Amino acid sequence: MNTNSSNIMALAPNTSNKRETVCIFGTGDFGRALGHKMIQSGYPVVYGSRSTQMSNLIPKDAEVLSHAEAAQKAAIIIVAIQRQHYNFLTPLAEILHGKVVVDISNNLKLNQYPESNAEYLAQLLPGAKVVKAFNTVSAWALQSGTLDASRQVFVCGDYMEAKQMVMNIVRALGLTPLDQGSLLAAQEIENYPLQLFPMWKFPIFLSFGLAAFFFFYCLALDVIYTYIYENNNFSFFIAITIPNRVCPVMALILLALVYLPGVLAAIIQLYRGTKYRRFPDWLDKWMLCRKQLGLIALAFASLHVLFTLVSPLRSFVRWRTSKGIISQALNNKTEPLDNANAWLSDSYLALGILGFFLFVLLGITSLPSVSNNVNWREFRFVQSKLGYLTLILCTAHTLVYGGKWFLSPSAYKWYLPNIYMLSLVVPCTVLVVKFVLVFPCVDKPLTQIRQGWERTPKYSE
Amino acid sequence: MNTNSSNIMALAPNTSNKRETVCIFGTGDFGRALGHKMIQSGYPVVYGSRSTQMSNLIPKDAEVLSHAEAAQKAAIIIVAIQRQHYNFLTPLAEILHGKVVVDISNNLKLNQYPESNAEYLAQLLPGAKVVKAFNTVSAWALQSGTLDASRQVFVCGDYMEAKQMVMNIVRALGLTPLDQGSLLAAQEIENYPLQLFPMWKFPIFLSFGLAAFFFFYCLALDVIYTYIYENNNFSFFIAITIPNRVCPVMALILLALVYLPGVLAAIIQLYRGTKYRRFPDWLDKWMLCRKQLGLIALAFASLHVLFTLVSPLRSFVRWRTSKGIISQALNNKTEPLDNANAWLSDSYLALGILGFFLFVLLGITSLPSVSNNVNWREFRFVQSKLGYLTLILCTAHTLVYGGKWFLSPSAYKWYLPNIYMLSLVVPCTVLVVKFVLVFPCVDKPLTQIRQGWERTPKYSE
Amino acid sequence: MNTNSSNIMALAPNTSNKRETVCIFGTGDFGRALGHKMIQSGYPVVYGSRSTQMSNLIPKDAEVLSHAEAAQKAAIIIVAIQRQHYNFLTPLAEILHGKVVVDISNNLKLNQYPESNAEYLAQLLPGAKVVKAFNTVSAWALQSGTLDASRQVFVCGDYMEAKQMVMNIVRALGLTPLDQGSLLAAQEIENYPLQLFPMWKFPIFLSFGLAAFFFFYCLALDVIYTYIYENNNFSFFIAITIPNRVCPVMALILLALVYLPGVLAAIIQLYRGTKYRRFPDWLDKWMLCRKQLGLIALAFASLHVLFTLVSPLRSFVRWRTSKGIISQALNNKTEPLDNANAWLSDSYLALGILGFFLFVLLGITSLPSVSNNVNWREFRFVQSKLGYLTLILCTAHTLVYGGKWFLSPSAYKWYLPNIYMLSLVVPCTVLVVKFVLVFPCVDKPLTQIRQGWERTPKYSE
Repeated sequence: MNTNSSNIMALAPNTSNKRETVCIFGTGDFGRALGHKMIQSGYPVVYGSRSTQMSNLIPKDAEVLSHAEAAQKAAIIIVAIQRQHYNFLTPLAEILHGKVVVDISNNLKLNQYPESNAEYLAQLLPGAKVVKAFNTVSAWALQSGTLDASRQVFVCGDYMEAKQMVMNIVRALGLTPLDQGSLLAAQEIENYPLQLFPMWKFPIFLSFGLAAFFFFYCLALDVIYTYIYENNNFSFFIAITIPNRVCPVMALILLALVYLPGVLAAIIQLYRGTKYRRFPDWLDKWMLCRKQLGLIALAFASLHVLFTLVSPLRSFVRWRTSKGIISQALNNKTEPLDNANAWLSDSYLALGILGFFLFVLLGITSLPSVSNNVNWREFRFVQSKLGYLTLILCTAHTLVYGGKWFLSPSAYKWYLPNIYMLSLVVPCTVLVVKFVLVFPCVDKPLTQIRQGWERTPKYSE
Repeated sequence: MNTNSSNIMALAPNTSNKRETVCIFGTGDFGRALGHKMIQSGYPVVYGSRSTQMSNLIPKDAEVLSHAEAAQKAAIIIVAIQRQHYNFLTPLAEILHGKVVVDISNNLKLNQYPESNAEYLAQLLPGAKVVKAFNTVSAWALQSGTLDASRQVFVCGDYMEAKQMVMNIVRALGLTPLDQGSLLAAQEIENYPLQLFPMWKFPIFLSFGLAAFFFFYCLALDVIYTYIYENNNFSFFIAITIPNRVCPVMALILLALVYLPGVLAAIIQLYRGTKYRRFPDWLDKWMLCRKQLGLIALAFASLHVLFTLVSPLRSFVRWRTSKGIISQALNNKTEPLDNANAWLSDSYLALGILGFFLFVLLGITSLPSVSNNVNWREFRFVQSKLGYLTLILCTAHTLVYGGKWFLSPSAYKWYLPNIYMLSLVVPCTVLVVKFVLVFPCVDKPLTQIRQGWERTPKYSE
Repeated sequence: MNTNSSNIMALAPNTSNKRETVCIFGTGDFGRALGHKMIQSGYPVVYGSRSTQMSNLIPKDAEVLSHAEAAQKAAIIIVAIQRQHYNFLTPLAEILHGKVVVDISNNLKLNQYPESNAEYLAQLLPGAKVVKAFNTVSAWALQSGTLDASRQVFVCGDYMEAKQMVMNIVRALGLTPLDQGSLLAAQEIENYPLQLFPMWKFPIFLSFGLAAFFFFYCLALDVIYTYIYENNNFSFFIAITIPNRVCPVMALILLALVYLPGVLAAIIQLYRGTKYRRFPDWLDKWMLCRKQLGLIALAFASLHVLFTLVSPLRSFVRWRTSKGIISQALNNKTEPLDNANAWLSDSYLALGILGFFLFVLLGITSLPSVSNNVNWREFRFVQSKLGYLTLILCTAHTLVYGGKWFLSPSAYKWYLPNIYMLSLVVPCTVLVVKFVLVFPCVDKPLTQIRQGWERTPKYSE
């Protein structure tokens, strides 16, 4: 059911009485939030607690009993207490025998304990049907009803019917259960809510580092050099001009870094003559973060597009344009159209537009819902064929843009090359090596190796 | 399976004979469409009807029998008649005992009856295994094979094997079954197809109302005032100039309205000293439509970007530019570069670009397939940290853009402020209050309250 | 679980010993890759092979036995050999009786054999519980761990528990199992990985053909004609000017082609007086590729926007602008603002912006994850109402842009119309016919027909 309708449902409690009673052990924050939500969804709730005094924090319609009494009233017991206190459950093992016991606990650190909390609970209560669920939902979200983020609740356990019962409750609360298989998956489920974009960390640090380096490089050449030698104060270049030099350079280098590991892997396989040896660790990790690198490259490319398109609106650009026109007018002459210049300017703009267009297309196909709808053949076609075409177009865009300055000595301030020259090193290397790899005499053995052939086979079936 | 392949399947009937016979009660439009599709997918179909005459509307390969005879031939009976006529089924209760009876009916209004149609059917036929399915698919779509929209078929029922049988049929028709749990979910499933963007209504009305107000406000100040006092006919401002004033104002205000309820909620919780009392209803509803408000704000921001970027192409802007240049040329002087102005112009453009970039990023993460792939921690990081950064950048963009006019009396036509001044009220308020809330002396008690602590506890476990 | 975490999992082998033994028949490439991955995920693996010599290609921790011995050690047997060699399994029928046998084979062509490989296997081994799975995953991806594309594994089979066992293995390998129902679905699952965008082929060929035609049409009129008669070398128009004429024309025509089949279908239904006769085949196929046509139209529209927005940066445009200004300055006059021109220019820009904005909105709602979250009513509202509004806005944009040239004889070089006049034929036709269809006297019978009514009924219930 869609997000919105469920939200509305949450506000209008369903008063149906047909739901089976659920027992919650623990009257802490999450236990109370879950109980509230369950009562709203029509479940009778019984709390099991050390002290059976009523508290105004506990939902009004819920009963509070001792742990043993509460457990006897329900077929499903939700354990909303922390792992350190699980041992208090051992005396209840007999009462919980055959019942569905739901572990909802989370840890504070990744892989904090040798076994997952749910597996530990299953060891303590060998007769109970332990199900892991609800740990990915926050108490605050349940309480406030603002379930904007993922409504997915990962469920795992060794007993199919027990899982089904829990998944029915999950659905009744307006959430989406996702069966993750046996209780062995509990470790991964418990680690899940602790992550903060683990695959993005390295690509983001790398690109921030590189971007900072290029920013200061440009600052030195474009602002400080100009100030010292030409006595022009172009400090306002910091806002747009320099970012618009750094962004395209970053986009091109990061895009090339997406395709570099594939090229390196091919060289390693050709050298070794087999695909059955592991790549070095750094190459494995690099290959796993290619998608992230590509998306960051796309972000830089988008910023480059925006910075470029606003340039006619810039006060500085308008001043420079009118200065040029006025000087022509005052000299009483009109320059004729420079055809070569018109070709150059239109070509690099067109190459840039096509490159950016394909880049956005690549970005769209990497959206989870789109990539789930294409098969391997289609995905490889898009990411490999279209990806290389994008890299070729973007490299050509940079080459045509800056080509004329390569040989001009004025482009080398302080004997340092302009940054777009630096930006061309990696993409040109990737394209040249890829070009060599496409030749049949290199491509054929590589294909054979990737299909399982070995140059020095020790055994063949 | 992906959408496309299934579409092809639908055109090339699968003539396999292994499928079990399905009985359909009712030869109305939906019954016929479903029968057609089932025969295409290889199911033998038997219709149960009051009159057993053959009609040319009924699929050729289907049999038409009396209700009782038809029901005996199949294990699954699909009831394709309206709820008002369900009582004719009571005499058939014995024949339908133990069979899977599928309710596919829809209502004309939300919550038309106290219980769902499927539950009503289950009451009439206590021995049958009632399953709710197919109500979200339209007859026209089944008939024409153009299943462009959602292929999801919500299925619910109290009998697991009965649901499995129905879900197999759903899959065979090229649709995706989604298990929604027990028959209690039928009410929600029956309401689902009647909705028309329920969560969008309020945000859309609000933004249209506000946009209309600002449009006429600008019309008065920019077109009518100019016409009366300066005798300039700038009526063409209606097409681009005024929309490009209204759009950024709307985007900024709506973005601030996304973060205002969170700030209000924090103040209420601090004042009450507890999180265990419900927020006022209006605040609850507001919090539930924050995503929609944010997306509408993004739409206005995108329009603002497009309107701004086309401005160099506008006939009026080109006329104004050349007028300025010509007057300089005729006066034989070249204005020097105004450094402060260059800084100002570049800064607000750069702030706007970065703000818009982050805004689009927020929009992308709110796509269902992306937000399903992030956990709570990641979602809150993006929506809260990046969201506030977006709000800060956009507010700064507006402040830098319009700053110089705050003190200039000519900005106050008819003693009314320019609309970007109005637009700054809400975002500045939100940012100031949020800034106060971030201070440790305020943040610490708030965090405690959100973790379940109470200032005046009546009971603690 | 999210993609990233699973990738990390794959690198850090889970050494849990609780997994049940899995037997793999065949030590070819895919068998080895699958075995490697399963051992990493904690499954003991036994290979069944003709020759039981150890090979260094086979994962170290795996045992290699004869087929019969290996099969006896495990409850799940994965058959990683080609269909042509399946008959060697017949002598093993007794040993495999009651076991779960997983068919992972793929074919080289669509519908290569009359029955699917999995069904053929089930015929050979009548006592085994055959499950189809894993055929959509590539060996190379499993081996390298770079599962960037779809992690979906389609699973089908006639035995629920057997499917559950296989789905648990799929999940343990970090992939997502998708239950596709009974073994009848195997044919479709086996065809799936062979497809390469089947629904996109016709729309892409059509649009490339049309685009090429319009490109050469423009080349003749804008470059060759100008060169011959006006002796101007505008060859650089090839880079931006001509693409920016072709793109909007293509976008408008393709968008109209999305709505044309719906209009034709309505006319056919009105003419026939019934909806119960199949449409001609070409119309059926056309209707099925409307989404693809629309997305290609959106791609052309986006390119048009980019080409238009860069125009102030073009060397040619800047030269033309300064030429105009200088000639005014030298003539010592300032042209007054042409109000009609300002209105015209602002109107077509504003219409274009709104049309493009709605077009992008339509594109976003056609993302799978978004369209899965809307019901039929909402989907039809967006695609029909908003779609026609987009078409109206885009047609108006073209009309206002080019209106003034319709009557000017200079617009007809070589007596040929300018291409934007050609581009208006299809959209205007669609809009006029649709306008007629909306009239109550036409709309009412059409609605009746679509609800199942017939003009000449032969039978009515």
